Parts: sequence; C-alpha cells; structure tokens
Amino acid sequence: MTSEQIFRQIEKKRSFLCVGLDTDIRKTPACLAGAEDPQYEFNKAIVDATAEYAVCYKPNLAFYEENGTKGWESFEKTCRYIRDNYPDIFIIADAKRGDIGNTSNMYARAFFEKGLVDAVTLSPYMGRDTVEPFFGYEGKWAVILALTSNPSADDFEMQKLENGRRVYEEVLETSSKWGSADNTMYVVGATKAFMLDGIRKIVPDHFLLVPGVGAQGGSLHDVAAYGMNKKCGLLVNSSRGIIYADSSERFAEVAGEKAREVRNEMDKLLKAYL
Amino acid sequence: MTSEQIFRQIEKKRSFLCVGLDTDIRKTPACLAGAEDPQYEFNKAIVDATAEYAVCYKPNLAFYEENGTKGWESFEKTCRYIRDNYPDIFIIADAKRGDIGNTSNMYARAFFEKGLVDAVTLSPYMGRDTVEPFFGYEGKWAVILALTSNPSADDFEMQKLENGRRVYEEVLETSSKWGSADNTMYVVGATKAFMLDGIRKIVPDHFLLVPGVGAQGGSLHDVAAYGMNKKCGLLVNSSRGIIYADSSERFAEVAGEKAREVRNEMDKLLKAYL
Repeated sequence: MTSEQIFRQIEKKRSFLCVGLDTDIRKTPACLAGAEDPQYEFNKAIVDATAEYAVCYKPNLAFYEENGTKGWESFEKTCRYIRDNYPDIFIIADAKRGDIGNTSNMYARAFFEKGLVDAVTLSPYMGRDTVEPFFGYEGKWAVILALTSNPSADDFEMQKLENGRRVYEEVLETSSKWGSADNTMYVVGATKAFMLDGIRKIVPDHFLLVPGVGAQGGSLHDVAAYGMNKKCGLLVNSSRGIIYADSSERFAEVAGEKAREVRNEMDKLLKAYL
Repeated sequence: MTSEQIFRQIEKKRSFLCVGLDTDIRKTPACLAGAEDPQYEFNKAIVDATAEYAVCYKPNLAFYEENGTKGWESFEKTCRYIRDNYPDIFIIADAKRGDIGNTSNMYARAFFEKGLVDAVTLSPYMGRDTVEPFFGYEGKWAVILALTSNPSADDFEMQKLENGRRVYEEVLETSSKWGSADNTMYVVGATKAFMLDGIRKIVPDHFLLVPGVGAQGGSLHDVAAYGMNKKCGLLVNSSRGIIYADSSERFAEVAGEKAREVRNEMDKLLKAYL
C-alpha cells in the first residue's frame, strides 16, 4: 500500500484510527468462552464492528505468542480475515522486532511473504541492518520506534548526544535516509504530543503511528494539532479504550460505538488541521 | 538457573559454547526431507551430537516464525526436547523483543511460563519498562543487547552522548542497576572483542553472550583474553559454523566434531585465562 492509498482511506472514512488488537485471552467476554478459538472470534467481531471507522488494525504479537502455536494461528487467521473482508485496511504487526541481516531477512519473510500484514514495528537499536530487509517488499512498510509513550523512554531515547540531538532525533534523522515516506513510518507516543512539533521538522512527510491516546493519557487534539501534515500523516492507535470498552455480549457493538466516537472527533480534527 | 550453576556446567564440560539453532528449513539436509517436522528433527540430531560440548542452546526465533504456526511448534518441541534430555543446559530464546509494561509482561509469559527457556534476548531501546517484567521469574534471565557485531552498530549504539559515554555504555551502566548478575546478561559482538576490556570495567560480573565468532570474523582467543572474568562470564555463540558444517547425512556427526573442536579450544582458554 502506498502513502497515497492510506491517505485516500483516511479522507474517505474521515478517520485516522488504528485499532490495536491487544487481545488478551484472560479478558475474553464470557459469551465467547465456548468458542474453539476465542481470540480469533473476539477479533473477528471487533473488526466487523469497527471496520467502518478504522483505517488500520494493529495486532500486538505478544498477546498471541503468549498462547504459543495456538496464538500464532489466531494471529494469522485474524490477518487473513481482515485481508479477505476489508482489503483496503492497513495491517501493522506490532512485533517490535530488531535483528541483523540474515535474521532480519527471516523476520521480513515471516511477516510479508504470506501477505499477512502491510507493516511491522521495528526497534532501531542495531541500526540500518535491522530495517533494510523490510524494504525488499513493494508496498510494505517498516514502522520504526522513535519516541515511545512509556516513562522509561527517558532512559535512552531522550538522552542527549554529543552532536546536540537526542537519541530519538538521531534515529529519525538517520533512518529517514534509509527508505522513504512510502516505506517508513515512526512510532511517536501521544504522551509526548508537544514534541511532535520538533519531530515534524525532521520528518515532515512520514506517517507517524501514535499510541498512548486514552488509557496512557495522551490527547488526540494535541496529537493532531502538533503532528498532522498535509496528507494527515497520522495513524492514532487505540486498543483497550475500544476493544475492552464492554465485557458483556454487547462487547463488539460497544467497541463499534467507541470507534465511531473517535472517528467523529477525528473528522473534526481533519477539518480543523488538514 | 543461577550464574553459579552455569559456571559449574562450564567447569564440568570445559566449554562456554552456545550453539545457535538458526535452523533454516531451506538448508535442511536432503536426508531429512521426508520428515514430518524437518526443523525439529534437524535440531534434535544437532543437540544430541553437540550436547556433550555445549552449555547453552540459542534458538533464533526468526527462523521458526518464518514458518508461522508450524515453526512455533518446532521451536517449542526443540526447547522441550533439550529440557527433557539435557536439563542442565541453558536455553536462550533469541527473540530480541522489546516492548513496554503490559506487552512486555505478555512476552515474559510467552517464553517463561511454560518453562520453555531460561532467557530471552531483549532490545533496550524503550528503557527499563521493557526489561523489568522478565525479572519476575526466579532463575530466569534477560539478555540485553549492548554492543552488537553488525556493521550498523555504528548508527546508534556507538554514538557518543553528551555525558561522554557511548550509547551502549549508557545501556550497560543504567541497565546493570535494574537487575543483578544473576538475572541479566549482555550481548556483545565478538567482532568488537578489543572493546570487551572497557565493557568489563562497567559490568565486571555479568555474563556476556558473544555472537560473531566464526562466520562473522570474531576471534575466540581475543574474546577470552579481553572478556573472561573469574567465573568465566562468557557464553560464546556459534551457529552456522557448527550446525551447517556439513549437509550430507553425516551433518550431525560433523556438527559434533566441530563443537568438540571449539570445546577443545575453549578448554585451553579456560586454562590460560581463568
């Protein structure tokens, strides 16, 4: 998928919402307890209820790996379900992988060769070797961690280098030259929305994947105000605030309502800032 | 497993060899082509042939994930086989995970709760939140990336901070205070062996997992000379040089011979430097 195609979806749906499928089997609603694959059934219901309001889904691999082989099956089935039924929706495997040449190649194959997802989140720690193999697939994306929303982002990401830049700024500066705004996105936490201004000076055209709105306290308004570019350039993720908004048999319906609320707010922000 | 238990194994076997199970199904010897699970059968044969000379195995998750659900099954079966037949051997899941609180917890569960492995490799980029959940399991370890063996380690790991330290030195300084030398190891590439001297000044007691000997050009002698501490403190990994030393039906036998050669060299180095 190109950045232009993502932007067209955003305009069409008036939404830049990414729904995080952090599907915890311990929180599966009771009504799905008897299902053969509750994790997949949950996702399927959530996707059907929210697809009208979302341009992106982001399954978080940790929640599937926790169930080992069975979890990987639920992950693959979920991706295929989205692909088959909502082919225009962008899918990000939130895997935060990061290894070198040989191994990185294998991860790229794992996620891209079967056509399961459009993008994978990657840690930049080991440098260019980590990211490059993911560029070998047309229309696929590397989503590189830059400035994350957690408190310990201060430990290393925020450290100042001798050249005056902070580590996350160095990551943006350096890695934006490896690929292009058509195959690279960045993770920037919403809890640091005021810093989006500076980030946009380094990467004016790249899409930013922004977690941390809602449960982690980030403000959607601030993210749009500081981070939106001419082609929106934002995918704002919400996980718990949507998928676990209700735990009764109405869970999917309520998730749909929550997603619609977010979409409506996003529509206003697109009018105000685009 | 405690560091003392690992050291006892090293003394007993006169080896600090870690065999990397980077098992590429495209390289499976022809004689295993008909097997139901060639990846597992290959590992089983390699483990049986090398267990006498190795204190650690390190399956590289990318090579299993590439096969999706089936690959995860091969990974799990491999770990269980080692556990059941060689309970004293340390197992590291080379997964290079790195995420925050909630998600990091899930990864820790994925790898530790079933007792599959003793340790997981982690990327420190997002800071303390990434690593801490892995400390919640007694006898389990976090293996944190510090200075890796790939060329693009220069991109960020080697960058100099305003405080005078390089990024990887800051990672060592900071993260060594999160846990202890009984639950934290560091990845330090053999291609940078001469830098082990400085690294030992920051983390004198921690075990170092050292890839890059052999195929990547690092010298085992230099690693021992610069990196060994009073309790050895080294696990030196070899993957391709052992597991793909031969592709005929003698693959396991030859892998065993290669592992024995490395062990014999390690025995000499233990005598010289311990």
